[in-house]
Amino acid sequence: MSATEHAGSAPLKRFRELTGQIKQYEEILGLVYWDMRTGAPRKGIELRSEAVGALSAETFKLSTSEEMVGLLEELNRPERLAGLGEIDRRLVEETALNVERNRKIPPDMYREYVVLTSQSESAWEEAKEKNDFEGFVPYLEKIVAFNRKFVELWGVKKTPYDTLLDMYEPGLTTEELDRLFGELRARLVPLAERIASAPAKPDVSFLQGTFGKEAQKKFSKHILGQMGYDFEAGRLDESVHPFATGLNKNDVRITTRYLENDLTSALFGTIHEGGHALYEQNIQDALADTPLCTGTSMGIHESQSRLWENMIGRSLGFWRRYLPDLKTHFPGRLDDVSAEDFYRGINVVEPSLIRIEADELTYNLHIMIRYEIEKMLFNEDLDPRRLPEVWNRKYEEALGIAPPTDAEGVLQDVHWSGGAFGYFPSYSLGNMYAAQIMDAARQAMPDLDERIASGDLLPLKEWLTDRVYRHGKLLRPSEIIERISGKPLDSAYLCDYLENKYREIYRLE
Amino acid sequence: MSATEHAGSAPLKRFRELTGQIKQYEEILGLVYWDMRTGAPRKGIELRSEAVGALSAETFKLSTSEEMVGLLEELNRPERLAGLGEIDRRLVEETALNVERNRKIPPDMYREYVVLTSQSESAWEEAKEKNDFEGFVPYLEKIVAFNRKFVELWGVKKTPYDTLLDMYEPGLTTEELDRLFGELRARLVPLAERIASAPAKPDVSFLQGTFGKEAQKKFSKHILGQMGYDFEAGRLDESVHPFATGLNKNDVRITTRYLENDLTSALFGTIHEGGHALYEQNIQDALADTPLCTGTSMGIHESQSRLWENMIGRSLGFWRRYLPDLKTHFPGRLDDVSAEDFYRGINVVEPSLIRIEADELTYNLHIMIRYEIEKMLFNEDLDPRRLPEVWNRKYEEALGIAPPTDAEGVLQDVHWSGGAFGYFPSYSLGNMYAAQIMDAARQAMPDLDERIASGDLLPLKEWLTDRVYRHGKLLRPSEIIERISGKPLDSAYLCDYLENKYREIYRLE
Repeated sequence: MSATEHAGSAPLKRFRELTGQIKQYEEILGLVYWDMRTGAPRKGIELRSEAVGALSAETFKLSTSEEMVGLLEELNRPERLAGLGEIDRRLVEETALNVERNRKIPPDMYREYVVLTSQSESAWEEAKEKNDFEGFVPYLEKIVAFNRKFVELWGVKKTPYDTLLDMYEPGLTTEELDRLFGELRARLVPLAERIASAPAKPDVSFLQGTFGKEAQKKFSKHILGQMGYDFEAGRLDESVHPFATGLNKNDVRITTRYLENDLTSALFGTIHEGGHALYEQNIQDALADTPLCTGTSMGIHESQSRLWENMIGRSLGFWRRYLPDLKTHFPGRLDDVSAEDFYRGINVVEPSLIRIEADELTYNLHIMIRYEIEKMLFNEDLDPRRLPEVWNRKYEEALGIAPPTDAEGVLQDVHWSGGAFGYFPSYSLGNMYAAQIMDAARQAMPDLDERIASGDLLPLKEWLTDRVYRHGKLLRPSEIIERISGKPLDSAYLCDYLENKYREIYRLE
Repeated sequence: MSATEHAGSAPLKRFRELTGQIKQYEEILGLVYWDMRTGAPRKGIELRSEAVGALSAETFKLSTSEEMVGLLEELNRPERLAGLGEIDRRLVEETALNVERNRKIPPDMYREYVVLTSQSESAWEEAKEKNDFEGFVPYLEKIVAFNRKFVELWGVKKTPYDTLLDMYEPGLTTEELDRLFGELRARLVPLAERIASAPAKPDVSFLQGTFGKEAQKKFSKHILGQMGYDFEAGRLDESVHPFATGLNKNDVRITTRYLENDLTSALFGTIHEGGHALYEQNIQDALADTPLCTGTSMGIHESQSRLWENMIGRSLGFWRRYLPDLKTHFPGRLDDVSAEDFYRGINVVEPSLIRIEADELTYNLHIMIRYEIEKMLFNEDLDPRRLPEVWNRKYEEALGIAPPTDAEGVLQDVHWSGGAFGYFPSYSLGNMYAAQIMDAARQAMPDLDERIASGDLLPLKEWLTDRVYRHGKLLRPSEIIERISGKPLDSAYLCDYLENKYREIYRLE
């Protein structure tokens, strides 16, 4: 069968309608979540959560209906797939996977879970604000119990935690992640130790003091514009925990959080979310009305946020170009600071408590802690009540510091309140993917660094669009990385990159 | 049959579930509209409109399903209704009415209409900004054509326009409205003429100049707080056309629009929307999960916005108490202005072009113009392309001034872009209801005016909650007004009120 099937064929047409509707409902739910996180009135959350539960349940029903199953039986056969265009083929495969997974969850259980997680995010926010782990633990216990049950229903892969990992990084296993994290640890821990004992410490004094929020906001918007973020297809707001959300490809929103005593927090947070947003804004139009119109995995998604945040935003060339702009936003504040000073100051390595404020190197240690804890929760049935104790001990062991409060410890991240167990490894995967992708970008564009240093960021954006963004979910993570670099994910790129960067900054031997 | 039916009876239980789901979907759609009007990125609107179309169609399907019809056949019978509690009984009656109406519209037509109106609001905004009626007219033509078709499908009452009026003010007819508006015209036009020739003109010079937006915002919030608006169950944002929207009773949002060269526009706009919001925030909890949890008619809704805006916000007592607060928000700007000066200045009567900035008296003339045009569109098949010409002529006749641009003329209001034909009369109905309600409130609380003058606004809010707000849609408009004042809607209260107010302000004989 060689001719591409007519888009008008009845089962395919109906299948596209149904998947389109699922995409549309997900868009609307995305907007409701965005609203809940950016300023929905507190008292309205309870009724709103019920409404979210109802619409999520309907979306779930669509994707698990007998009609959908029948259509997939018709379409998801090798001889039929062979006759489909690329988009339809991937749409069938991807949908079949989701439908199979979703049909294992009883609808009432799913709805109850949605209501729970949409309430628990507010509960988490309150608990974090009040440093009240006890207030949050009833939610956490329920969320963990649900996820344990889901793993059972979906089927335990090699270990229960593998089943969760697979949700965010299709095909990734605990075994492979243990190996990758082992390799990272073997090179990064000694690097951190050499840095700790290096005599040449960067000066960070110029980063101290107060930096007005309005000027921070203005500069953040300026940088987003330079990256090619389209403000007519997105907006920048504030939330407790920064995030990016692609509602549709022409409405990709970013949030950040301004701290007046910290110039870099909102800035790098914004660039990070801006990287996610560039991905979603630049997916090809042909995918716009399908659930394929999103990043192919969380690891690849995080590779884009962390590439822009760290490999561009924390590079020397970038600040050669943009430090003068920053100075005009904060007149008189940074007059005597050179690009080199600034570069060294924003790349200081120091064990710290808060993941999203960690340096590029120790960041990976924050991730490994969460990874180990998640493995304990799902492979060893760790009692969620014991999380603060385990958390604090692991921070003490890995970073030599223990959080004085749970707000600065186990309560710092939003992820678990939304049930996103298995997500955290994506950040370090992202770092690894990013280093490997940047290596290929430099080979493809030998003048890339000069371009960045002259503020010409768009060629990189275009190259990434071509290799990553435009494909959405059409290519799998392994296809993306192998097409770009000719080999699978390899931890050596990140280790090499970090060793080179910090050797220079800390003037190691 | 004397015992109240158990809430657990199967058809009733399922009926409550279905109506609850409809309410929840409407809540989510309300949020999407709020977002579109308060800052959704321009490029995302097209895909968002499709998503709105999908969810609206699903909501429509729920309310017109065979299952719903079957449940209503079971429940909407006199002997069955008699056994229901008050809420269930009204819910059945109200739903039956909607279902009957909705089932006359083919679902595909409905969906197409929803997509059209959600796109056309953006088109209207753009057209207004660019003074480009030609750019908007293709949308308008389609919207009018749809509404003419709807009237046909629903069935023409005495005239086609009656069918539309009935949507916003159940039971109201063109005949009755012609009479009421005739009565108003007979007393208000001479009053306006006497005012025009009165020698004692209020001084308005202190209202000129620039009033900073941030201070305006702060003062608006202060007044909302004084009215008893609950900021934990709502929020204040900005939009081109101010509105209030009750997403759920604990999330009732207001928008306003700040003009730095106009102190009163945002202020009275905010109080107006605040009145709508008080209504929605104070509906009884027992209605929260039903479609009865909203105002009983647009006329009664507008009575609350206009009561707070004009009868409180533009009263002398109010400014005796709040002018000092206003002065502290604009230091040095209003030092020499007395409460009497301010009261006279904000109540100046002057023929003007923009409805939402009109004084309390000529406002009704703006409404009558729109009413007459809408009658022409539906009862005389007026071609929408002729709207600017008709509009300008009617302004010339009624107010003696013609808009120099369509932006200040036929494009000024959002209503028609959303297909809300038949809504405008609600504003003048609201004025009439409000005057009649305030008369009763003063009889019930002889010290009401002293309380207002001392900033004690909550007793009025409580009284209105008891008589109007808490009932939601449980009582019909005629029941509300008759319970409050012992008689049906009567235009004399408004005429008396305006004559007394302006006699004093303009020192008429």
